[in-house]
Amino acid sequence: MSATPSMAGGNEAMVLREDRDAVAILTLNRPAARNSLSRAMIEALQAALDGIARDAAIRCVVIAAEGPAFSAGHDLKEITAHRMDPDGGRAFFAETMAACGEVMQAVVKLPQPVIAAVEGVATAAGCQLAASCDLVVAAETAKFCTPGVDIGLFCTTPGVALARAVPRKAAMEMLLLGEMVPAAEALRMGLVNRVVPRGEALHEALVLAGRITARSAVALRLGKRAFNQQAGLPLAEAYAAAGTIMVENLLAEDAAEGIGAFLGKRAPEWRHR
Amino acid sequence: MSATPSMAGGNEAMVLREDRDAVAILTLNRPAARNSLSRAMIEALQAALDGIARDAAIRCVVIAAEGPAFSAGHDLKEITAHRMDPDGGRAFFAETMAACGEVMQAVVKLPQPVIAAVEGVATAAGCQLAASCDLVVAAETAKFCTPGVDIGLFCTTPGVALARAVPRKAAMEMLLLGEMVPAAEALRMGLVNRVVPRGEALHEALVLAGRITARSAVALRLGKRAFNQQAGLPLAEAYAAAGTIMVENLLAEDAAEGIGAFLGKRAPEWRHR
Amino acid sequence: MSATPSMAGGNEAMVLREDRDAVAILTLNRPAARNSLSRAMIEALQAALDGIARDAAIRCVVIAAEGPAFSAGHDLKEITAHRMDPDGGRAFFAETMAACGEVMQAVVKLPQPVIAAVEGVATAAGCQLAASCDLVVAAETAKFCTPGVDIGLFCTTPGVALARAVPRKAAMEMLLLGEMVPAAEALRMGLVNRVVPRGEALHEALVLAGRITARSAVALRLGKRAFNQQAGLPLAEAYAAAGTIMVENLLAEDAAEGIGAFLGKRAPEWRHR
Repeated sequence: MSATPSMAGGNEAMVLREDRDAVAILTLNRPAARNSLSRAMIEALQAALDGIARDAAIRCVVIAAEGPAFSAGHDLKEITAHRMDPDGGRAFFAETMAACGEVMQAVVKLPQPVIAAVEGVATAAGCQLAASCDLVVAAETAKFCTPGVDIGLFCTTPGVALARAVPRKAAMEMLLLGEMVPAAEALRMGLVNRVVPRGEALHEALVLAGRITARSAVALRLGKRAFNQQAGLPLAEAYAAAGTIMVENLLAEDAAEGIGAFLGKRAPEWRHR
Repeated sequence: MSATPSMAGGNEAMVLREDRDAVAILTLNRPAARNSLSRAMIEALQAALDGIARDAAIRCVVIAAEGPAFSAGHDLKEITAHRMDPDGGRAFFAETMAACGEVMQAVVKLPQPVIAAVEGVATAAGCQLAASCDLVVAAETAKFCTPGVDIGLFCTTPGVALARAVPRKAAMEMLLLGEMVPAAEALRMGLVNRVVPRGEALHEALVLAGRITARSAVALRLGKRAFNQQAGLPLAEAYAAAGTIMVENLLAEDAAEGIGAFLGKRAPEWRHR
Repeated sequence: MSATPSMAGGNEAMVLREDRDAVAILTLNRPAARNSLSRAMIEALQAALDGIARDAAIRCVVIAAEGPAFSAGHDLKEITAHRMDPDGGRAFFAETMAACGEVMQAVVKLPQPVIAAVEGVATAAGCQLAASCDLVVAAETAKFCTPGVDIGLFCTTPGVALARAVPRKAAMEMLLLGEMVPAAEALRMGLVNRVVPRGEALHEALVLAGRITARSAVALRLGKRAFNQQAGLPLAEAYAAAGTIMVENLLAEDAAEGIGAFLGKRAPEWRHR
């Protein structure tokens, strides 16, 4: 267990990583810029996730943020600066969208479950980041919005994550109107799993992470991947894919141990934690 | 701005169109038949939507209705009359379903956002029309139902719109039981975005439309189309499609203006309103 | 009408079938084992559903359970016993998952609507069975959970049914945390249609079944199949498929009768009940 925050990749200051037992806490650490997702921030987050994907000691991830905002979305100053590029910014914009889409998918594809701990405002690509996590814990003061329409830039890529998290009309309302959605409303629409008092989002996320890391890592890794795989398939294909994973899971040592422990009314001892 | 209702296409009386600044209000105007979707009504609505799709001055559409019912669905008298056709009505029924499916998809594909303003009962294909809109504002007295089972005709085509708006079991309940769903319940299940006092649905829809038309039309057009395009794709394809649109949107004049105005703390002046 | 429970297939005791008019009540009848889905139980349920699929006299199905649990999911003792097989259980596990996936899909594909009446706990594959039904009525004391993570076996196959019934993050929360979801919360997330006082789930399910069987069977059969068919298709294909079914339904005798009765303000007399 390391209680000292360490650095993630070469963009040290941008994303802090602190490991608490089997939980990696990633903290967006650019509070003065409201944790906006500059290219350096996206790269730091990608590097941190890549490191965790290879780290068998980590069994759950929490994404939190320094300062009053969870994340303000793309870095508009950086985007504007690149309008001076010879191509008017086209190449930079394309690379940025590719890198941002990549990091959002990295959250979804990460073997470990990822929990967002949102205290402040999660805006545009910041809302997308939260929506891309497996679970979201929000302080009652947290807010979610996709206000791209206010700046002539519809939140199309955040809409990819939103459309997969909330009902169609709720997503369209957020995208067309760009209004702030309070945590309680976000809970109602399915974007948030838990609402807690102000200042307690990280604590609650760690409580949930603790419950997750008490379980077999092999089951969780098989399960998260399989869930995302089957969710988009026709029913028969989904059952074929899920059934195959279930057999693999049943044959893993931890399932034998877990089922044996359950039948023997004792606590399981996971091999693959 | 034209405060005088004008006529839409050749089926003048069926659907009224009134433009208020950049908002086109389409009013289903067959109150004596509870705005049922006869072939003439479907054609009038299609013609009105086709006209709006080509009308760059219109940036948002509201669909409202004259009389106590929003729409009672298909015109059962017309359907019954065609049972006397030599083919027992088969050709007429097929043409009607094709035309109805076409107009529902025209709402979804319309470049401009569409808001339903529902005061009374939206039944069967009338419910489908509301569900096909991007947003739905309902008076607290509004009701939604798909009661085809009562007349031996399962609401299969309304189910297409319902299945994409509300959770699976909520849709099945509406379709199997055919019961009236009050506005408050429709809000809970995601079919409705806002519930307002009786008589205020159109007003509230116009408030939302006003917020939408204050934004850049180019962003809204790109965004609505992209949302519907990506929502049905696998995640990686969705991000690829959405990322391409984001680059296009970033390179549009209005995004430069909007982002510049935001950074400069001034109000944007849209070129493409 | 047969008020005496009869036996389903060769696994008589496992699943009881009682027909009340046009409603078949299937009762999971292995209360001492918390109605766990042993291979024999799965086969009995499959046989019962196969029989009902061919039984034109049955127009709705209710699945209930004997004893305090609706179903505890797979039979862990049976699974553990097969670890002694020469292949460590692989063949048995694969056959079990195939049979279980088959029976869940048989519920979805059954021509008749299926209503789950859940009084107690629906766990893992038991939760999957409820989630696979068209409608779910739950007593206020009912609970739903997918606690496979507790035994090293992620509820991947139950996740197939869950992902199609509730929002993505709600499903992930159930799967990752394995916590009990009370009926009221299950209602909120869309897994349950109605919550009733303790002991009244079967009664309420029969009330709903009675409303369903009062309708034309031909409409219900066409409609249930079409709903599940179109729900996974792109919009244009969904409308093409649904439109074809609507024409077929319109040409059926019961639609002529139903629409005629509605226009004539009399009660319909269904031919195909």
